[in-house]
Amino acid sequence: MASVCILDEFEVHKNEEFLSIAEELKPELHRTDIAPVRLLTLEQDGNPEPAIAEEEAPEKLKEKRLKKDEKVILDFGNHHVGYVTLDLASAGSHQDAPAYIYLKFAERLDELNTDVSSYNGWISKGWIQEEYLHVDVLPAKIELPRRYAFRYLEIKVLDVSLKFSLVINGVTAQAVSAVSEETVPGIQTEDEVLKEIDRVSIRTLKNCMQLVFEDGPKRDRRMWLGDLRLQARANYKTFHNTEMVKRCLYLFGGLTFNEGKIPACLFLEPEIEPDDTYLFDYALLYGSVLLDYYRATKDEKTLKDLYPIAIRQIEIGLTYLNEEGVIPDRSGEFWCFVDWGEGLNTQAASLAILIYSMRYGIRLAEYMGDEKTILWLDEKMQELKRSAIRHFWDEEQKLFVSGRDRQISWATQVWMILARVFDKEKNRELILHTIEVNPRIRMVTPYMYHHYIDALIRSDEKDRALDEMKRYWGEMIRDGADTFWELYNPYNKYESPYGSVAVNSFCHAWSCTPTYFLRKFYLPENQQ
Amino acid sequence: MASVCILDEFEVHKNEEFLSIAEELKPELHRTDIAPVRLLTLEQDGNPEPAIAEEEAPEKLKEKRLKKDEKVILDFGNHHVGYVTLDLASAGSHQDAPAYIYLKFAERLDELNTDVSSYNGWISKGWIQEEYLHVDVLPAKIELPRRYAFRYLEIKVLDVSLKFSLVINGVTAQAVSAVSEETVPGIQTEDEVLKEIDRVSIRTLKNCMQLVFEDGPKRDRRMWLGDLRLQARANYKTFHNTEMVKRCLYLFGGLTFNEGKIPACLFLEPEIEPDDTYLFDYALLYGSVLLDYYRATKDEKTLKDLYPIAIRQIEIGLTYLNEEGVIPDRSGEFWCFVDWGEGLNTQAASLAILIYSMRYGIRLAEYMGDEKTILWLDEKMQELKRSAIRHFWDEEQKLFVSGRDRQISWATQVWMILARVFDKEKNRELILHTIEVNPRIRMVTPYMYHHYIDALIRSDEKDRALDEMKRYWGEMIRDGADTFWELYNPYNKYESPYGSVAVNSFCHAWSCTPTYFLRKFYLPENQQ
Repeated sequence: MASVCILDEFEVHKNEEFLSIAEELKPELHRTDIAPVRLLTLEQDGNPEPAIAEEEAPEKLKEKRLKKDEKVILDFGNHHVGYVTLDLASAGSHQDAPAYIYLKFAERLDELNTDVSSYNGWISKGWIQEEYLHVDVLPAKIELPRRYAFRYLEIKVLDVSLKFSLVINGVTAQAVSAVSEETVPGIQTEDEVLKEIDRVSIRTLKNCMQLVFEDGPKRDRRMWLGDLRLQARANYKTFHNTEMVKRCLYLFGGLTFNEGKIPACLFLEPEIEPDDTYLFDYALLYGSVLLDYYRATKDEKTLKDLYPIAIRQIEIGLTYLNEEGVIPDRSGEFWCFVDWGEGLNTQAASLAILIYSMRYGIRLAEYMGDEKTILWLDEKMQELKRSAIRHFWDEEQKLFVSGRDRQISWATQVWMILARVFDKEKNRELILHTIEVNPRIRMVTPYMYHHYIDALIRSDEKDRALDEMKRYWGEMIRDGADTFWELYNPYNKYESPYGSVAVNSFCHAWSCTPTYFLRKFYLPENQQ
Repeated sequence: MASVCILDEFEVHKNEEFLSIAEELKPELHRTDIAPVRLLTLEQDGNPEPAIAEEEAPEKLKEKRLKKDEKVILDFGNHHVGYVTLDLASAGSHQDAPAYIYLKFAERLDELNTDVSSYNGWISKGWIQEEYLHVDVLPAKIELPRRYAFRYLEIKVLDVSLKFSLVINGVTAQAVSAVSEETVPGIQTEDEVLKEIDRVSIRTLKNCMQLVFEDGPKRDRRMWLGDLRLQARANYKTFHNTEMVKRCLYLFGGLTFNEGKIPACLFLEPEIEPDDTYLFDYALLYGSVLLDYYRATKDEKTLKDLYPIAIRQIEIGLTYLNEEGVIPDRSGEFWCFVDWGEGLNTQAASLAILIYSMRYGIRLAEYMGDEKTILWLDEKMQELKRSAIRHFWDEEQKLFVSGRDRQISWATQVWMILARVFDKEKNRELILHTIEVNPRIRMVTPYMYHHYIDALIRSDEKDRALDEMKRYWGEMIRDGADTFWELYNPYNKYESPYGSVAVNSFCHAWSCTPTYFLRKFYLPENQQ
């Protein structure tokens, strides 16, 4: 199902002062030369999980004489974000026709076995990282102008001529990021799985840290508030690039719309602009990002500047309550994200997230010494906790339900726990009961899994949280992840919210938080 | 059948002096701004001959909001060669995905109805003028780096997103040529068909006159000697750009190979180089180009420089004779072009062209005062005329035959007439008899038709020549030609030597000679 938001009335209020603070914090990108580490040939067995038929040293590349329909696959050894240059020539007689070449960049090997021409999902096929190139004159050094997120590059000759072959003398690339991986030592542990999960988390985060915190360097290549919150948390424990968090907080704060809402995401080009998308949960979580930032930096000026915007999101959130003190069911609308699960009802979770954001609001107000807001928020929060129980708690099933159909999902339980609707002991019972019941409406994104892990930890189930983390993110690594994926449903590994995994992002910001949990709760001596 | 020549031993002898003379004559190209004159919508009836369903003013273009799979067709009013700039923007919400666009440039409207993805001919599909573009940031002004030959441009949106549409604010283009059409007044005649044939000839010639005389601006975009000869003839009567002929003569003269052979064609990029293709007839016709040039310019220096090369081609040609005084049958080899007819046997024609070239050699030798060569060539020429009759004349059928299977073709008769194997009266009988018999091995290119018209005129059949010219080139215009086509078989309008008309060239140098005939033989007051 297509999930988009288009606001008919959308009036942006630019705060030029905030935007200029953000602009001054724009980072210089690190550039690292990378090169293919091997050439691959895949089995032609029609299997979506490709098997490698043959490996060759990258030096063999320039010895090949490629004719029509022949191809090479270059493996750059790991996931990178960057720019590629092709050094092409011809062999045989003089080039007597344009060389026509197809390029396909892939984050995962199986993307190379996907027939992308048949893609017909609801997001743009423009996200598929493919190019058709005519090269009229060989030799040629072709600096591809676009940025790609990739580990693999397939180069296929669509046609040359009977008189000449294509020669690829070399393929060079430059990886870009606002941060450098070398600055973060690996965690000190005997557990190899955790070490690897930490490493992959950091690489995921690094590849998403560009001119802002991007959600995914393949797609959407822009800043979503929900991703930012989790990236920032992982960043404090690793790269500790607090300036980039500050930049992003000011960008969102400088681009509110209509009654002061924060947009769900921002575009950087051609100039910085907000998307006309309002996500109820994302906007409310702005205060959480700000609080995390303040705790990491004690930056009073930023707190003071952005505090009113965070509180404003809560005020706006409260306007959505109906007379019964809950958010009406808005199923079918792309209005409160929560998770990508097909058919997930977010009514109860949206209320839980509102409550959760109020606790953060209170903490912010405390740092600001804003007594009036503390009192108002606390009173309102207690009231909403009561209506949450009144409306959504099913005493018989011992689970929260959501929506007209009283749907039981993992997400609803997790957010009610994080909202602290119950006390810690009852929350612990709830999460254990949820695990036992294993509701069919499962979590499919690492974004939602983050909150599940968080809920376990907050319910004094740290060991279980670690096991779940190893099970979920560890399984992704066993399935071949070089960076963590946007979406991972262990029960359906080819799930996509978009109509095809061809457009799934396989390096996605919101998936990078295991390093945050590990370094904060389990191995605090490894915090940066 | 694939027709290529690859010479295993190919040693180029560059004459740097000649090449530097040619380099100094490199023209500055005229640049003319052009714009679409209307927008078209075609009937979707699967018919290869497209019908126009709707026409709109070009101003309507920027009002369109194009979504996935929607397209526009721009008609630039006539055939052009040049560079195109797209001025793109978006409408709706902010662009939230790359716009993915497909462009197809077409010389003829029916190319837009051709499914080029299924093309599987023996020349490169790289010649098909299509592009796939990702536009990451809108608005964008995209200067396409490649040169196209086109009248029509289809722009199709492969994808945008649910949130925005593509807007084409404008498409501008610059046409390029070494010459300007305005310098050549139309012919003075009441005959509208002739006027139009002349106009289309001149446009064809103009669009092929770039940094050299190209064979076709879509394909092959390089200089073939056979095309040069006919272009130069048309050029003397129209643009009279003798410097470009001189440049091309020096280029061929400066790039001989092995025993002094002239290559059949030259590449301009990355630097000027000959193709390793030897075409027996093309090499022999170099002397004809030189003689035409000398007669048009009286340029003694060029004649003196290049005369030895022209004579050398005849010497080389004579080495191919067998002990019976004819060229052996080399069917199946791409060795002597003559015409693109499937199955055409060129044995007899190759001898005829050798004889023809010797007459031109004698004229050159006369201008050079080279008595020895005159005597030698004349004696040899008479001898070959006798062996041509002895081996190829079929007294019973009153036609020349060719090859082991004694094939009777139009081409063989035409070249035997041009070689003047018989006297004028007998030639006249032969051409009239050929018309009567109408051999099944027909002429399919305007290149071969040129020689047919020439043969008629030389046989005092000027009126019939004019009728035939009107019938052949006039019919091409009635079939929609804006410029004359590489190949035109009125009996099979979708004939292609390459496996599909998708790669045929529809503005082809060798097709431009009606203007030469008209201005030289019929309306000499219209010569430039």
